[in-house]
Amino acid sequence: MTVHSLHEAQKVREVFGPVLPRLQEVESFLAHELGHSLPMVTDVAGYVLGSGGKRLRPALVLLIARMLGYSGQRDVRYGAIVELIHTATLIHDDIIDESDLRRGRPTANRQWGNQTAVLVGDWLYSRTMDLCLELGDIEVMRHLNAATLQMTEGEIMADQVRRRLDLDIGTYLEITRRKTAELFATACAIPALFQPSTLHLTSPLMDYGRDLGMCFQIVDDVLDFTGSRSELGKPVMADLREGRVTLPMILLRPRLDGRQRASVEAVLRDGTFQQVSERELAEVVRTSGVLDEARSRAAEYAARAASRLHRLPGGVECDALLRATEMLLERRC
Amino acid sequence: MTVHSLHEAQKVREVFGPVLPRLQEVESFLAHELGHSLPMVTDVAGYVLGSGGKRLRPALVLLIARMLGYSGQRDVRYGAIVELIHTATLIHDDIIDESDLRRGRPTANRQWGNQTAVLVGDWLYSRTMDLCLELGDIEVMRHLNAATLQMTEGEIMADQVRRRLDLDIGTYLEITRRKTAELFATACAIPALFQPSTLHLTSPLMDYGRDLGMCFQIVDDVLDFTGSRSELGKPVMADLREGRVTLPMILLRPRLDGRQRASVEAVLRDGTFQQVSERELAEVVRTSGVLDEARSRAAEYAARAASRLHRLPGGVECDALLRATEMLLERRC
Repeated sequence: MTVHSLHEAQKVREVFGPVLPRLQEVESFLAHELGHSLPMVTDVAGYVLGSGGKRLRPALVLLIARMLGYSGQRDVRYGAIVELIHTATLIHDDIIDESDLRRGRPTANRQWGNQTAVLVGDWLYSRTMDLCLELGDIEVMRHLNAATLQMTEGEIMADQVRRRLDLDIGTYLEITRRKTAELFATACAIPALFQPSTLHLTSPLMDYGRDLGMCFQIVDDVLDFTGSRSELGKPVMADLREGRVTLPMILLRPRLDGRQRASVEAVLRDGTFQQVSERELAEVVRTSGVLDEARSRAAEYAARAASRLHRLPGGVECDALLRATEMLLERRC
Repeated sequence: MTVHSLHEAQKVREVFGPVLPRLQEVESFLAHELGHSLPMVTDVAGYVLGSGGKRLRPALVLLIARMLGYSGQRDVRYGAIVELIHTATLIHDDIIDESDLRRGRPTANRQWGNQTAVLVGDWLYSRTMDLCLELGDIEVMRHLNAATLQMTEGEIMADQVRRRLDLDIGTYLEITRRKTAELFATACAIPALFQPSTLHLTSPLMDYGRDLGMCFQIVDDVLDFTGSRSELGKPVMADLREGRVTLPMILLRPRLDGRQRASVEAVLRDGTFQQVSERELAEVVRTSGVLDEARSRAAEYAARAASRLHRLPGGVECDALLRATEMLLERRC
């Protein structure tokens, strides 16, 4: 772990303080679930789940359940389910993107091959639906499945605009919403579905989570340019290498001269820095001001998320959500 | 279409005569569903669904719903859902098996690449769950999801014994049950869940469908040795080329001499016939008697399936199920 990731981990612990013991229960649930699966699932899913994810989505489920006065066990179960869906998505997305590294380690597809990665992702999707069906909350299932469908559709859309420098900002935001923000929205809304008295909060909670997810992803896209390899756990500008055009590059595009534009297109096409050096391109991006503009966009989503908290019950959990929003905006890895 | 497949298609039409108009409704539902999806899904799933599958699983849903006196529309919907799950499984399985041909045409992975095939399969799985959730039948969902999970587990088990000539018959039957028979069982049992008065038939219908599915798959495994390339729509002994050891080869194994055994192992390992000619190996298999033994096994499952029909309401539909059982046992492609 680097100094930055240690620092970030410490911050996560502070912000999610009120639900740390419950997060431990989510971990136990996940460990038990995978420990009783087929060996291939135990190995591969255990590897991905154990790679240092921050458990943001389960923490949101737990914090919001507590904020709404829920005292049962379903928050732990659904926290684990949301993390398993997220894990399945990571595994399949890394196949689509042909990614080699995630969080400083080889991706599952690189380590075990595409075939195994397809199977383990499929297994996780089916098994999470099984876990939902055991609980029998049809409304929660509708939300979770809708999010899963949107994530796949987001990945399909992303695949279709891959390597296209002329991607427009509207399509970028739509892809970001589907691929990332909808699962955040669903994680936040699920606890409202536990009790009839909180059903009316479903929609404001979804809105909060969606804005938080948009902020999270845009920051991620900025960090891809500003972070170091050790902070990111993957090469700098991995998005560009894998053909993904994100907000900073969309903002930069009209300011590129012909030669620069051709260089960026070469990276998108070839996946390597040959026509332009990595350092040179990073310098162009950093001095252009687009990273600040992208951060401002993320800050707008964070501010909107924060403003939505006023419509929710207050208390220490609401304060924690506010700090979580700030933390995601300011994170370094 | 070859003479054989025309003949088979004619037979299917005869056997499923009582539900042909309803099968047409399933087709319309599938066409409408895919016509309103993302273009990638419309293209890829439409290609696989339009490749001449016999719609056995929807036909079973429809016939059994009619046998049980069901008069609503859910049988059409679930017939389509079962076919979509089957389609998703074919698409992902062809990635795992690295198959090039299915039903005489390039597989989806060969035509569009693994990435697209992963995404379209994922989309189909999520969308079918969505369709189920719209109907809200939690018991049907439990059955369908359990079947989907078993199919993935069957494929995982199959992947782990790939290229192993020493596969035992118990593991082969277990893989066959999970990969094929459980979806047949579920297709047959779903209509019993539509009405409280038929709930008690769920278990006998699952047993019927499971035996039928075992018969179907064993016949498939025999046809892989006896069919011609044009009948099969893929190379003869495709199973062996793709590293799958099936019942005929398991039965043959103890009768192979050292040289023959090494030859088969070479095909399993290399995916090509180099140490032994295709014709020579086919001859060994055909003259050994193992194909008749495997067919006898399939016939035992067919007989057991037929005997289970006695526990069900009679009528023209029951006669049709009996003829369907015979048809699957005797089919040539």
